[in-house]
Amino acid sequence: MDITRTLASYLVDGEYGDLPAAVRHEACRALLNWLGCAIGGSRHQTVECALAAVRSFSGPVQAGVLGRGDRLDILHAALVNGISSHVLDFDDTHARAIHPSAPVLPALLAYAEWRAVSGKDLVNAFVLGVEAEERVGLSVFPEHYNIGWHITGTAGVFGAAAAVGKLLGLTKQQMRWALGIAATQSAGLREMFGTMCKSLHPGRAAQNGMTAALLAEKNFNSSDRAIEAARGFANVTSTRFDPRVITEGLGERYEILSNMYKPYACGLVVHAAIDGCIELARGHALVPEQIARVELTVSPLVLELTAKRNPQSGLEGKFSVFHAAAVGIIHHAAGEAQFSDEVVRDPRVAALRERVAAIEDRAMGRTEARVTIVLEDGRRLSRHVAHALGTLERPMSDADLEAKFRSLVGGILPEQRIAALIAACWALESLPDAGEIARLAAAV
Amino acid sequence: MDITRTLASYLVDGEYGDLPAAVRHEACRALLNWLGCAIGGSRHQTVECALAAVRSFSGPVQAGVLGRGDRLDILHAALVNGISSHVLDFDDTHARAIHPSAPVLPALLAYAEWRAVSGKDLVNAFVLGVEAEERVGLSVFPEHYNIGWHITGTAGVFGAAAAVGKLLGLTKQQMRWALGIAATQSAGLREMFGTMCKSLHPGRAAQNGMTAALLAEKNFNSSDRAIEAARGFANVTSTRFDPRVITEGLGERYEILSNMYKPYACGLVVHAAIDGCIELARGHALVPEQIARVELTVSPLVLELTAKRNPQSGLEGKFSVFHAAAVGIIHHAAGEAQFSDEVVRDPRVAALRERVAAIEDRAMGRTEARVTIVLEDGRRLSRHVAHALGTLERPMSDADLEAKFRSLVGGILPEQRIAALIAACWALESLPDAGEIARLAAAV
Repeated sequence: MDITRTLASYLVDGEYGDLPAAVRHEACRALLNWLGCAIGGSRHQTVECALAAVRSFSGPVQAGVLGRGDRLDILHAALVNGISSHVLDFDDTHARAIHPSAPVLPALLAYAEWRAVSGKDLVNAFVLGVEAEERVGLSVFPEHYNIGWHITGTAGVFGAAAAVGKLLGLTKQQMRWALGIAATQSAGLREMFGTMCKSLHPGRAAQNGMTAALLAEKNFNSSDRAIEAARGFANVTSTRFDPRVITEGLGERYEILSNMYKPYACGLVVHAAIDGCIELARGHALVPEQIARVELTVSPLVLELTAKRNPQSGLEGKFSVFHAAAVGIIHHAAGEAQFSDEVVRDPRVAALRERVAAIEDRAMGRTEARVTIVLEDGRRLSRHVAHALGTLERPMSDADLEAKFRSLVGGILPEQRIAALIAACWALESLPDAGEIARLAAAV
Repeated sequence: MDITRTLASYLVDGEYGDLPAAVRHEACRALLNWLGCAIGGSRHQTVECALAAVRSFSGPVQAGVLGRGDRLDILHAALVNGISSHVLDFDDTHARAIHPSAPVLPALLAYAEWRAVSGKDLVNAFVLGVEAEERVGLSVFPEHYNIGWHITGTAGVFGAAAAVGKLLGLTKQQMRWALGIAATQSAGLREMFGTMCKSLHPGRAAQNGMTAALLAEKNFNSSDRAIEAARGFANVTSTRFDPRVITEGLGERYEILSNMYKPYACGLVVHAAIDGCIELARGHALVPEQIARVELTVSPLVLELTAKRNPQSGLEGKFSVFHAAAVGIIHHAAGEAQFSDEVVRDPRVAALRERVAAIEDRAMGRTEARVTIVLEDGRRLSRHVAHALGTLERPMSDADLEAKFRSLVGGILPEQRIAALIAACWALESLPDAGEIARLAAAV
């Protein structure tokens, strides 16, 4: 059972030319989505606090904080961009477990600003990093997560180490060490959900994974069997370990193809209800005054997670399926703007929110919903959403991702930069210098 | 069960004036011992590799690498000094579990170089940091350790956060957050023993704990119940948690009084045998040519850990009770010098090593040994060591600690500096600026 060695060999051998077109395109989609989240989150209080704390200790300016003017050394840039890209809870999600981009791309983009990296090499390193973190994470999932580990932090650090190690051109022995140094820094507790530490996790994973690769490059050694050893990552942090998840189908199956993007700035379980509300409101040009009541038939999980009846803040609004439905109907959207304090307190939204009811149905999937809007004139409009927008069954289109990007970065970057960034993401593979993306994403 | 709050309150309220004289003196002893280990380890390959990897990312020069000329930002200085002070495996050990100084003092001394800190404040912060890490560690010990966590890393991060938080003057709310930010960075696998990553653990604990305190100072928030929550540190990383170990007797019982120092540069289990050999060889002025054979009666644990019959390198020598006995007899010492490649390969040492036998005796304690030296003339010299030098029952004297310090730093610092450092450690409480110690410990 030579798991770490097998994974390290694959990472060192994996070439850009091996990647199927769909995989390469998905990398571009993930980059665009992640970049929007990072820039959109860059003014968040969590980022302000982190910058205030670490700024005095930053090394030479080597990389930028996306969406801002700050420049830091690459390790601190990876930390802060990792925080900002997860802070809105709007970044991508693997169909089963971890948020793959937030621990990996901050490290890669900081690296690309520091030393020139071609778009092709960035794509390859990113895909391989995602492969490493997802496979390590899934090999212990869900037990590891159920114990209380925030898998985006604990597995993410492997992704950053693998991706940066790839750009550094580590030998196979060094890549094993990099994975080992990552393993022994793996951290992040689910107890932190709801606090600033939740987004610290991918930030630290990016920073520590990058450090792992840099240490390994200088022959700082580690265990050769850090993942599978009796006292290694898997056995220490989980009650179950399936090593085949790591080694089977390497180079044949790509985890990035299971990547999902959120159209709405709240938990996935609410998305199907929002979809139905937006479609009905748009299709019938409804105004709230017409509406007697809204009935949502949803999985019991929805009420377990988002049953807040009278949210008082934007953050609370994200945990209210009633609020989500109301803004879907009134705004035809559920982005960050719809979860602002202002919109949550808007009397028109609050009034409609009170007329929304939710009915549990165990037969419903977690990304499924039936929405029925009963009008004052007695008509009943109904829509069944089998799969929410953003799921693998019904992915966001490239145009949807562009629109999401615009909604996140508008007001932070000027239109010209926004257009240039969108174009650069789609053209990533032909960029001679991928650091260009980070430079375009700096505040002007 | 409000464990994190209780601990944080104690840390914020604890004053220098509360500390008993014995506690304050133990802090000075621990500082002297730790400083010798850090300076003595400062030229180790592990430190060279770490410096080579991180130097380009260091911030403004704020603190020095002990025993060297390098200057780094305080976070990197804490990392590197944490590594160097543990790399020889010669630093202090709590009677039950963790190496207390290596995660805490690197952070405190770096801080003291950056912002002036009085000796009294340093002593108080150090004692409180040790209290935090030991109590958190012991509350989950030994299950946490048995699972595979290197407790010096996983609990040490709490110590560094508490100690630096104390110097920063955190509020009680901020101290809770600092402990929480520490908890969610807690890491380090025992699988790394025997690799460079073992000493990375206290280095990262020092650096990450310090970062936790700096983040909390800027109101970067965290869970308020990070230690005891269902998905908090204790429950996620251990199968048993005794919260009373953290909260009972705060301010009455001091964990630093259970601190032990190693006289010999190898594992504790070998120490009693070395003691007996040195005493007999010295007392009878023995030369190896007189000796027919040496019989060691020891705990079975000794052979489980150190049964290497023919060590080939200095490192292997540390895992050979036979080598340890031989150098004890020939050199009357077992410091770093006696575990060099050169001494391990010395034919005179190797010849005596072959005449050493070890007999297991289950009745023997792990710091107990009986040594019998049979001379060529037929005489049998015997010595029973009930407790090895350095145990709580038979602590190293202040003079022993000075001699150990000298043996570690001789050849690295000039005599004048050595004498000044020893004097400064004993006079720590009267120093107006404790950063003076770090400045004296820089290579000239």
